[in-house]
Amino acid sequence: MRALDDRAARMLLAALIEPGDADLADLIAETDAIAAVHRLWAGDVAERLRRLTAPALAAGSEYGARAAALMDATAAVGARVLVPGDPEWPQQLSDLARLDIADEPHLRPPWCLWVRGTGDLAAATRQAVTVTGSRAATEYGQHLADDIAADLAEAGWTVVSGGGFGIDRAAHLGALARGGTTIAVVASGVSAPYPSANTPMFDRIADRGGLLVSEWPPDASATRHRLLLRARTLAALTAGTVVVEASARSGSRSIARYATALGREVMFTPGPVTSSQSAGVHQIAREGWGARLVTCASEVIDDLTGTPPPRSPGSQRRPFENLTAAQQSLIEVLPVGYLVGTDRIAAASGMPAAVAAEQLEYLHRSGWVDRIDRLWRLARQPDPIAGPGPTAS
Amino acid sequence: MRALDDRAARMLLAALIEPGDADLADLIAETDAIAAVHRLWAGDVAERLRRLTAPALAAGSEYGARAAALMDATAAVGARVLVPGDPEWPQQLSDLARLDIADEPHLRPPWCLWVRGTGDLAAATRQAVTVTGSRAATEYGQHLADDIAADLAEAGWTVVSGGGFGIDRAAHLGALARGGTTIAVVASGVSAPYPSANTPMFDRIADRGGLLVSEWPPDASATRHRLLLRARTLAALTAGTVVVEASARSGSRSIARYATALGREVMFTPGPVTSSQSAGVHQIAREGWGARLVTCASEVIDDLTGTPPPRSPGSQRRPFENLTAAQQSLIEVLPVGYLVGTDRIAAASGMPAAVAAEQLEYLHRSGWVDRIDRLWRLARQPDPIAGPGPTAS
Repeated sequence: MRALDDRAARMLLAALIEPGDADLADLIAETDAIAAVHRLWAGDVAERLRRLTAPALAAGSEYGARAAALMDATAAVGARVLVPGDPEWPQQLSDLARLDIADEPHLRPPWCLWVRGTGDLAAATRQAVTVTGSRAATEYGQHLADDIAADLAEAGWTVVSGGGFGIDRAAHLGALARGGTTIAVVASGVSAPYPSANTPMFDRIADRGGLLVSEWPPDASATRHRLLLRARTLAALTAGTVVVEASARSGSRSIARYATALGREVMFTPGPVTSSQSAGVHQIAREGWGARLVTCASEVIDDLTGTPPPRSPGSQRRPFENLTAAQQSLIEVLPVGYLVGTDRIAAASGMPAAVAAEQLEYLHRSGWVDRIDRLWRLARQPDPIAGPGPTAS
Repeated sequence: MRALDDRAARMLLAALIEPGDADLADLIAETDAIAAVHRLWAGDVAERLRRLTAPALAAGSEYGARAAALMDATAAVGARVLVPGDPEWPQQLSDLARLDIADEPHLRPPWCLWVRGTGDLAAATRQAVTVTGSRAATEYGQHLADDIAADLAEAGWTVVSGGGFGIDRAAHLGALARGGTTIAVVASGVSAPYPSANTPMFDRIADRGGLLVSEWPPDASATRHRLLLRARTLAALTAGTVVVEASARSGSRSIARYATALGREVMFTPGPVTSSQSAGVHQIAREGWGARLVTCASEVIDDLTGTPPPRSPGSQRRPFENLTAAQQSLIEVLPVGYLVGTDRIAAASGMPAAVAAEQLEYLHRSGWVDRIDRLWRLARQPDPIAGPGPTAS
């Protein structure tokens, strides 16, 4: 048997057990992914994991050969595999480890990600928004998704969606039309992403600086369960999710729920109450999740970044132009909407970690940056109070 | 000169100075409306009030004759005049005394109300909702307003609106179509309410248990300023306001603002983002006023009354059916959405005040009733948390 590295081990695990499985996540956390593979092959795991992996292991091949086959399949489609710790790994996915939804415990972070395309996943999702919705979208919804995605792309935001028909497709194409970066997170493998009728679009995405992203090996097919698992990744990958159209029992509702539970911004575009394709978004609006109504890209950006910094004398925040060049460059690499560590920020800014840490402290004290535990993010400005005037007594 | 009573004095004041004027409100509060008339006629008031009333007083007639003329005009159109303290006076209007909006200080309660129709204003607004919106409404908006008003009427809610074209008219007609009570609060006098093309509708409202309500003498004409003043009354009279369609600079926005400032519920029905008649409601949604998206009457009622009382063992609230008959009848006369005094509740329930007070205390302790200072209202239940599942860590 060949020695296994972390990347090969995680690929094997993704082929064996659906990503996000809490028992396997715990097993990996006990030691590492390599040890988890060894224990699975040895049958040295709890009954449930043994039962789940039995059929695959009964086929007999040893893990080295399997890993080699997965690597070959990955290379054959021009894809690569990312694992936690890679510079390109989107650190914000680790928020999924804290996702706690009753009756849905198996929503942990992906073991690894297959990606295809010329973009850099970490860089592309630093300022990204998920735009998703109904497959059976109306003309109205598709037009709106296209418009919003195009304007988001124009403003430098990456548009993330699911690659499906209807709203997803309109969002990807809208971003592509303006030369923007767009990412399709698919519920199948990246060799023939689902749905296959969108293959020309997937190829364009991968060729034009965007990415196809999957938690499953290249040849995996989409299943209902995988579409649900994929929802948590669409929610976790970005600072917020815009649901453009959705029917009453739409999967977009899951994405909005996960985004809410992850502390991401949830937004929706309204439609006529008489449209069945808007019924789901109006439900989201009434869920008590704090979903914000948006009608255009600039409102999406407002909601994700907050209003411009106050310039009143009472403000503790120095104007951006009065910061040092180093401070400005730190602000430029800080992600919107999720937290990252000092090392990652230092690397992105090209500063020594100690210098970055010191400057981040300063930016934190002056209101530019949030710090939670030892992680950082760009501070969002609070909503202004109630517009011009009304102050209830 | 004939002696003046409070009612005649307030009618005179309404003819002299626009209702809601803060300086006149303060003058009335110093002693009473009768003294305010005497002082105005004597010129014994501050410069601003003297200037405002000079042209009218220069005409020369003494106040007794003027009051008699107003009473004749009122009787001639089959109207009556309500003043604070009347059993039919809607006590919730006193909340306007607390309305504090920068640059708009002149929004105090009306001096008196001219009402025409067979309804009882206090009783009809105990469970009432304002449904209003654009004059230049679309077919979609009118259909929706008609539907929502009809279903609110069916559920026993009074539909209050402004009697205008478009959404207002659809709301009144929707309520009338189901035999419901509807109230038109107009910005002109009640003899020929504005707009005159709606006269047949106004007559139907007055004849079928509803009411026409105005703060101005019977022959007063509608002005831009009066339309704005009327907005505060539409907001204050009910537990909440639903804006169905509104253009970007619509007067409905003022009603929503006042309702927010008064602590009333603000709701809106969404529409296509491509419709100029929905632009104003989408603005309201984004104002930070906590406006709720509604798509039908039952959602309006949910938002105004809260969800049904929890029945879990942890709940302190006894089920309605386990309350005594006296307690149940108190709950039935308690208003939704605004506060009233013990005497008013006792009178409405037919109970001695001391008994009502004691039972209200019990209902307060058991979570059925809110008490603020010495006023009462039906307790609203808190929103349930986040639907099925998501609990952000």
